[in-house]
Amino acid sequence: MDKNKGMLLEYYINKSNQFYRMANRALVYKKPTPISVVSVKYEKGKHTIEKGYYSTPSTTDYNGVYKGLYIDFEAKQTNSLTGLNINQIKKHQLLHIKKVYEHGGISFIIVYFVKLNKIYLLFCDKLLRFINNSNRKTINLNYFEENGFEVKLGVNPYIEYLEVIDEIIK
Amino acid sequence: MDKNKGMLLEYYINKSNQFYRMANRALVYKKPTPISVVSVKYEKGKHTIEKGYYSTPSTTDYNGVYKGLYIDFEAKQTNSLTGLNINQIKKHQLLHIKKVYEHGGISFIIVYFVKLNKIYLLFCDKLLRFINNSNRKTINLNYFEENGFEVKLGVNPYIEYLEVIDEIIK
Repeated sequence: MDKNKGMLLEYYINKSNQFYRMANRALVYKKPTPISVVSVKYEKGKHTIEKGYYSTPSTTDYNGVYKGLYIDFEAKQTNSLTGLNINQIKKHQLLHIKKVYEHGGISFIIVYFVKLNKIYLLFCDKLLRFINNSNRKTINLNYFEENGFEVKLGVNPYIEYLEVIDEIIK
Repeated sequence: MDKNKGMLLEYYINKSNQFYRMANRALVYKKPTPISVVSVKYEKGKHTIEKGYYSTPSTTDYNGVYKGLYIDFEAKQTNSLTGLNINQIKKHQLLHIKKVYEHGGISFIIVYFVKLNKIYLLFCDKLLRFINNSNRKTINLNYFEENGFEVKLGVNPYIEYLEVIDEIIK
């Protein structure tokens, strides 16, 4: 899988968020990747970073506001036809998703099954239920089908995930 | 003013957010500074950034969830004894603060008058009211006194800004 293909879901989500912002429907952004800057050169009125390292984020990648509510999520894509390996969700991401839920925010994962061209949204409570009740390392596709919401793939937005949020807040 | 002194408010806020997270009161983080990475070296299992530039953020520095509500703010400090120059609030920050407000989030600025050792929180509506009704380049201290909330300075948290949020949501 080449690098671009690995970023497909991220691309879809960024484009969807851009569309949602332009249509004034929600304000959701991807957080920048945290970088520890080691050395900076200042030249011709501009700072150039000469050395830095990627550092580990404490949160998920996306957050924002929709209808006054705090929303927060992580996006994962897989080539598997049968499920998502839970190791793809990092420990700090899972912890953050849980914390957001405890603070009354709306947190979830968006999972893209590339080869099926299907996207599912799974809310925090159902994600935790799986993790707390199973020793399996894979969340099977049918768990997503039964406990998650299929997200429409389209154009403007690419991924209509706010429709799913509407389902649970109405 | 040395660099560290210029970062004093940021330090206070980061420490306060850390405290709020540990005390399970709120989940608020500073967003990483966005950096455009130009070149990366991969060596000994580690990526080292060899060249990069700071890029312009689209949002404010801080956001998170408190009692299910989306909160979002920018922090400014000044050595002035009389007011805050509104040019210290960048255009994209002001626009973002306004957008958050329109989407039902709680947005504000936190301003630290270093030489007075006083901190004020000014909510979006009062900030916009000033900007829409005045040609002055400075938000005077007395505007903060009359339309903002003074924020307690202390220890754990350094800045008790959630108390102010409680005032308006109760």
